[in-house]
Amino acid sequence: MPPFETTEYQARLARTKASMGVRGIDLLLAADPANMNYLTGYDGWSFYTPQVVAVSLEHDAPLCIVRGIDRNGADVTTWLPKDNNVGYPDNYVQSTERHPMDFRAAQGQERGFVKDRQTVGVEMDAYYYSAACHAALTKGLPNCKFEDATNLVNWVRIIKSDAEIKYMHEAARLTEKVMATGIEHVRPGVRQCDAVAAIYQAQVAGSPDYYGDYTGLCPMLPTGVGTSTPHLTWTEAPFKVGEGTILELGAARHHYHVPMARTVFLGEPPAKIADTAKVVVEGLAAALEAAKPGAQAREVEDAWRKTAAKGGVIKESRIGYSTGCNYPPDWGEHTLSLRPGDMTVLEPNMTIHCIPGVWMDDWGIEISECFHVTEKGAVPFADVPRDLVVKA
Amino acid sequence: MPPFETTEYQARLARTKASMGVRGIDLLLAADPANMNYLTGYDGWSFYTPQVVAVSLEHDAPLCIVRGIDRNGADVTTWLPKDNNVGYPDNYVQSTERHPMDFRAAQGQERGFVKDRQTVGVEMDAYYYSAACHAALTKGLPNCKFEDATNLVNWVRIIKSDAEIKYMHEAARLTEKVMATGIEHVRPGVRQCDAVAAIYQAQVAGSPDYYGDYTGLCPMLPTGVGTSTPHLTWTEAPFKVGEGTILELGAARHHYHVPMARTVFLGEPPAKIADTAKVVVEGLAAALEAAKPGAQAREVEDAWRKTAAKGGVIKESRIGYSTGCNYPPDWGEHTLSLRPGDMTVLEPNMTIHCIPGVWMDDWGIEISECFHVTEKGAVPFADVPRDLVVKA
Repeated sequence: MPPFETTEYQARLARTKASMGVRGIDLLLAADPANMNYLTGYDGWSFYTPQVVAVSLEHDAPLCIVRGIDRNGADVTTWLPKDNNVGYPDNYVQSTERHPMDFRAAQGQERGFVKDRQTVGVEMDAYYYSAACHAALTKGLPNCKFEDATNLVNWVRIIKSDAEIKYMHEAARLTEKVMATGIEHVRPGVRQCDAVAAIYQAQVAGSPDYYGDYTGLCPMLPTGVGTSTPHLTWTEAPFKVGEGTILELGAARHHYHVPMARTVFLGEPPAKIADTAKVVVEGLAAALEAAKPGAQAREVEDAWRKTAAKGGVIKESRIGYSTGCNYPPDWGEHTLSLRPGDMTVLEPNMTIHCIPGVWMDDWGIEISECFHVTEKGAVPFADVPRDLVVKA
Repeated sequence: MPPFETTEYQARLARTKASMGVRGIDLLLAADPANMNYLTGYDGWSFYTPQVVAVSLEHDAPLCIVRGIDRNGADVTTWLPKDNNVGYPDNYVQSTERHPMDFRAAQGQERGFVKDRQTVGVEMDAYYYSAACHAALTKGLPNCKFEDATNLVNWVRIIKSDAEIKYMHEAARLTEKVMATGIEHVRPGVRQCDAVAAIYQAQVAGSPDYYGDYTGLCPMLPTGVGTSTPHLTWTEAPFKVGEGTILELGAARHHYHVPMARTVFLGEPPAKIADTAKVVVEGLAAALEAAKPGAQAREVEDAWRKTAAKGGVIKESRIGYSTGCNYPPDWGEHTLSLRPGDMTVLEPNMTIHCIPGVWMDDWGIEISECFHVTEKGAVPFADVPRDLVVKA
């Protein structure tokens, strides 16, 4: 059973088709697992073989085309008529002779989803839409025009329904638990891997009422000199007094994420770390204050930038992004970014992770909030104190 | 510090260059995170933004080109001279104006890694080498020839060194723990998510001596009618008497995996399930018996097929694949497959996951072994009884 009403999926589809119409796209092939899930409910860790959802302006319901052994999974998870869940034979899998996209091109034509001279939209820069997928598809549909539809569905996803917001509130309750678990386990002598094990445990076990999903990014907790780089994972080394640890964690409900970063220091933090953390917290507060409906994404970044600069902190990389329904390897939506030049106007029910991470040569600080844009302004989803956590 | 000696990385590089030479490739761009790790040691959950390792026949050491904020991570994890770890500016990230591959094309030329009229090998069908990556790269290097080098490094990886085998033995000790944890938690009334939470805990906490890595596939345990489809994940529903549950799990050391599947039935299993499990175990034993150095991959499948057919079990999809060092979303190596037509000859120190999964309309069975091809034949890495697990 999909987690939303069929009417909600149909509304998403209608918005997607409207966007296709504006762009002159007759057939859209969505390969991003989050887009597939958003349009049909399809859910499974099967994105390691090529799969797509095909949306045609001329057909009410999309096709969900997956590997043959995953077709039952499509029947179990999508709202589509069973006939629209299509499996390709296993001899297409990792073959040097045929590509799953050959099958799709043929199916699309057979079922009237695509005709000569039509325009096919493909997600050129989506995860799992490889260069080989594109080569096979264009070869299989030589009389079609191809249009880059990267992020077309992602932009449809940017404003959440109340039902989606509800799942994010559920995820936030788990994020609070997960972060408390992480902070509790960063203690002198505890092994990093044991802290991460406890974090995974909290993410997945969820609450007494509901489970948690796997998250788009794995738990990250660079420690010591590792805090100078954001994407290192754990080892069996124990946490040490005199070192900082960044916890970049999240939790998800039906793949809707609420991410969060906090920084823990064991012992007395050096002045540069304590001072920078203070500046980051002030800058983050300024960004949240600026994140009202009507503001542009770049203005939110500018509020951070000006406040942080007063404290002597300069950061060149973006400070945030739209988030929501996502699959590994990311929980960002690849649409709005909080950075100079992004003129996206904030609207109610956008959901954004503001994460002004600061990485220096041999140390770093991350303190973030995932927030809900409401009529009244930004409201963080989770409730966790925003300071540098100092533990003796 | 990378997990292998620099001499081992250099030997890998030499074999990769030899394969490039045979194929007439002057510059290889490896985008698959496992290939990047294999050649340089680079490690981090940063593959959600484009990154590559560039191997040139004319340069001793490769370039590791990652997002700017991950450059420190490359310094921490690779054996390369620091000057060979290159970060691209953050305004290339998820931009509609510029693509990280633009930067790479320019860097490659500037640093003499690529010249006009040379042949550039790219992994057309690698995860994370999107159609847009390829379009930007070919545009940036208009005077080069492009050659599909998908799986070139993967084929170099297929025969493991003794140091790699050692990590797989360590992973196997964790897999035994992880499977025991999974089997223990499949009990009437236990929530699926609590079982998975315990499984993650066991995967990551590792042993008293060493940690476990995140695995290429998440823990999968389809239950009841869900066993008819292999890639569903968990919910908060409790396990029930009268239902089967498939545990497809793994553990990893330095990203070297030992996967394993077992099936648990709560209560008295129906005859079709008990009988099919018996046939699967016999077919698996026949496959292992056939998996000696000198045998072809298709002959291993054939041994399964003939034995299973005697028991009335017919399976069309492949029954196994090469495994080892991998990153999400997969732990398969995309080279050897145990299936009809695959004439790859087995050699000592190949490592293969034989997983003859059988999925019927509303039930399924998976019982697998990950094995080491030794001079004397196949030796399973992990030691877990191979029968259907029946619990009252």
